[in-house]
Amino acid sequence: MDKIPILRMGPFLLVTIQVDLYDRLALNLETDLVNMVHKTGARGVLIDISAVSIVDSFMGRILGNIASMTRVLDAETVVVGMQPAVAITLIELGLSLSGVYTALDVERGMALLQTKIGSDDELIDDDADHTE
Amino acid sequence: MDKIPILRMGPFLLVTIQVDLYDRLALNLETDLVNMVHKTGARGVLIDISAVSIVDSFMGRILGNIASMTRVLDAETVVVGMQPAVAITLIELGLSLSGVYTALDVERGMALLQTKIGSDDELIDDDADHTE
Repeated sequence: MDKIPILRMGPFLLVTIQVDLYDRLALNLETDLVNMVHKTGARGVLIDISAVSIVDSFMGRILGNIASMTRVLDAETVVVGMQPAVAITLIELGLSLSGVYTALDVERGMALLQTKIGSDDELIDDDADHTE
Repeated sequence: MDKIPILRMGPFLLVTIQVDLYDRLALNLETDLVNMVHKTGARGVLIDISAVSIVDSFMGRILGNIASMTRVLDAETVVVGMQPAVAITLIELGLSLSGVYTALDVERGMALLQTKIGSDDELIDDDADHTE
């Protein structure tokens, strides 16, 4: 299988990574996600990596790329379910996943996204008379 | 990886099948799901098979098993995202997935589960004096 399914859940997209992200798969995921955000107008992307036990700098870069790409389309990315060992490895590799939000599990990730969207909407409400 | 992650989303559990379900993986999934339903008190299980392009009688049986197992723990199972070719193959194999609910995508599957839970609750309210 050379595609990772992207599930739509209300205003969010959910991706569960269960296999090793080799080059083409990772690039496909980036393209698919950006297209889906554009098509659906999603406001957030949840990436579950609870099944990932090994992480390297490539994986870290892919997650950072996805977060940056979706952000320019007005969607925040939250990485959820990171195993403790993966967190240790990431930091030891010097990758702090800057620009990527993280949460313990999907539910908390979704709550985080809701807060982000909520605060954005308030901002828009407050300045409704301004052009954006 | 010999585990398929099970994500908790409110009263439901979500499983995305992305790899071929060989024997041990399928049995692990059954056990993990039943344990999770028991531990979390989940009322529904969503199994996304949108990444599955090949299905055989073993896969059909596993889905049927999961549905039966979760039902005795008071949780309904909905299989979502089935590809048209998979639906054709299943019926040609003579597997009609009896006892398994299906829906087009996760959102519709969740709506279906909400209805089921809702109608169950009403039933319990209406016939509170009956044993079920």
